[in-house]
Amino acid sequence: MSQQSKDQARDQQLAEDCAQQLFAQDAASKALGISIGAIKPGCATATMTVTDAMLNGYKTCHGGMIFSLADSAFAFACNSQNQAAVAAGCTIDFLRPGVLGDQLSATATQRYQGKRSGIYYVEVTNQNAQLVALFKGNSARVNASVLPDATTPKA
Amino acid sequence: MSQQSKDQARDQQLAEDCAQQLFAQDAASKALGISIGAIKPGCATATMTVTDAMLNGYKTCHGGMIFSLADSAFAFACNSQNQAAVAAGCTIDFLRPGVLGDQLSATATQRYQGKRSGIYYVEVTNQNAQLVALFKGNSARVNASVLPDATTPKA
Amino acid sequence: MSQQSKDQARDQQLAEDCAQQLFAQDAASKALGISIGAIKPGCATATMTVTDAMLNGYKTCHGGMIFSLADSAFAFACNSQNQAAVAAGCTIDFLRPGVLGDQLSATATQRYQGKRSGIYYVEVTNQNAQLVALFKGNSARVNASVLPDATTPKA
Amino acid sequence: MSQQSKDQARDQQLAEDCAQQLFAQDAASKALGISIGAIKPGCATATMTVTDAMLNGYKTCHGGMIFSLADSAFAFACNSQNQAAVAAGCTIDFLRPGVLGDQLSATATQRYQGKRSGIYYVEVTNQNAQLVALFKGNSARVNASVLPDATTPKA
Repeated sequence: MSQQSKDQARDQQLAEDCAQQLFAQDAASKALGISIGAIKPGCATATMTVTDAMLNGYKTCHGGMIFSLADSAFAFACNSQNQAAVAAGCTIDFLRPGVLGDQLSATATQRYQGKRSGIYYVEVTNQNAQLVALFKGNSARVNASVLPDATTPKA
Repeated sequence: MSQQSKDQARDQQLAEDCAQQLFAQDAASKALGISIGAIKPGCATATMTVTDAMLNGYKTCHGGMIFSLADSAFAFACNSQNQAAVAAGCTIDFLRPGVLGDQLSATATQRYQGKRSGIYYVEVTNQNAQLVALFKGNSARVNASVLPDATTPKA
Repeated sequence: MSQQSKDQARDQQLAEDCAQQLFAQDAASKALGISIGAIKPGCATATMTVTDAMLNGYKTCHGGMIFSLADSAFAFACNSQNQAAVAAGCTIDFLRPGVLGDQLSATATQRYQGKRSGIYYVEVTNQNAQLVALFKGNSARVNASVLPDATTPKA
Repeated sequence: MSQQSKDQARDQQLAEDCAQQLFAQDAASKALGISIGAIKPGCATATMTVTDAMLNGYKTCHGGMIFSLADSAFAFACNSQNQAAVAAGCTIDFLRPGVLGDQLSATATQRYQGKRSGIYYVEVTNQNAQLVALFKGNSARVNASVLPDATTPKA
């Protein structure tokens, strides 16, 4: 196994460990039935099914629930390098309503990561691969590691 | 009672009726324990207490829950003139974390309302009147009334 | 030449014609020394050199000039299908300053295009391929064609 | 003169000095014919007349020029306390086109200012007091003073 392959395998393991660590304590994501999907360094997928309790006054999925799914995927992605980060700000465009029973999938991709601030794009699609929302998350690292006993890697 | 006072009273009643109508069917807001506070034409306040089930992996309030509160206040405000409107897009800046037990209050104010699109600013504060988040909502009217048997007023 | 190839060639020609038509009358882009680069359906590149007259009080490129470059690329991209569109709103993140003499390049890519509204992502880089800014443009079509004597294609 | 009045007078003088200092070296704002209007701590107004050289391919004011005006007002406002700050990101909603000869006015108001990051709202209106654009600027302080020989005040 080459050094490059070893580095990639280590980064991949780190990303998965960070996501699991965050998710294990993420009561809000669990309360919404969010599951973690594919994880890679800088990238994360999260999925959620639209339930009755997520519908708004127009019987479509409350925008806050779609945002929450995107925000969770963003969190797993921007914390994937074992440097704890929080959301500083986000934008979301709602392109298609979610309806009862929809299986929504949010995929977050790192677009920029500086020493401290990062920008991640998230797309939310439904079970028919239709675009439901586009989200941009601005993250800020907070000088802590994600894993409790890990040595924080250099930026 | 002057005509102006009558108009104001009617607009106020309409705003309250629209908010109640929306809220009555808004399972998502209820599931989060959101309550409607003061309502005025173009303006709405919503409140929510941060519970265990709203905490994220860092034991602070999940950004999606803060967004949901702001989004609900925005919805009540942009639907307050009995012209059904949906969120087209939103931005949020997170300025201070919410913690367990915080009583959050979101106040939405109409900043612009054209024939179809509107812009609403929402501020989210905690029980100590500290700023938790700033939110901007872009709304789009959808050619329907909010109240089931109402005649939609002219734009 | 297959029908598909013919369609692609026609779409490509249309995109180039629309960009040239817009640019020919775009005094603001010309005043900034903006040039059109590669054009494809839904995509456009524009370039600009940072001059003395673009510097702000901190002797870096005024954010408005970087925005203008991104906005012009966005305009060429969202008008590339001969359906006239205007900017409804934009966001920009400034990641690295531009300095005197920098050769900036903005590449706009269609991310979503509905019947009326569209979302385009633009990245602005310098001559060293370093990321200067990320931009998102929300467009709105206005029921007109870009080319003066063209038949507007169906949405 | 009470101490409070003295403090206010000093803060006001500081805000004016900072704006003048920035503007004196701001070639970009001058090239666009931007003038500084009223200045207060955290607030600034800037004005600009739409010229031929600001028109885009649709013969309305290029969005980048409207953005530049708002961005200049934002810069004067977020630098008004003699702590140098730069734009980290901005959003703008275009609500009404600017046309040749329009006298545009941008008023920036501090909405939030922490130790480092700030949020400023800017509204752009025309000579008929019609709303042309709404802008939000996120600023970041950079550990320097605006005035060359000033002692940077504590945050």
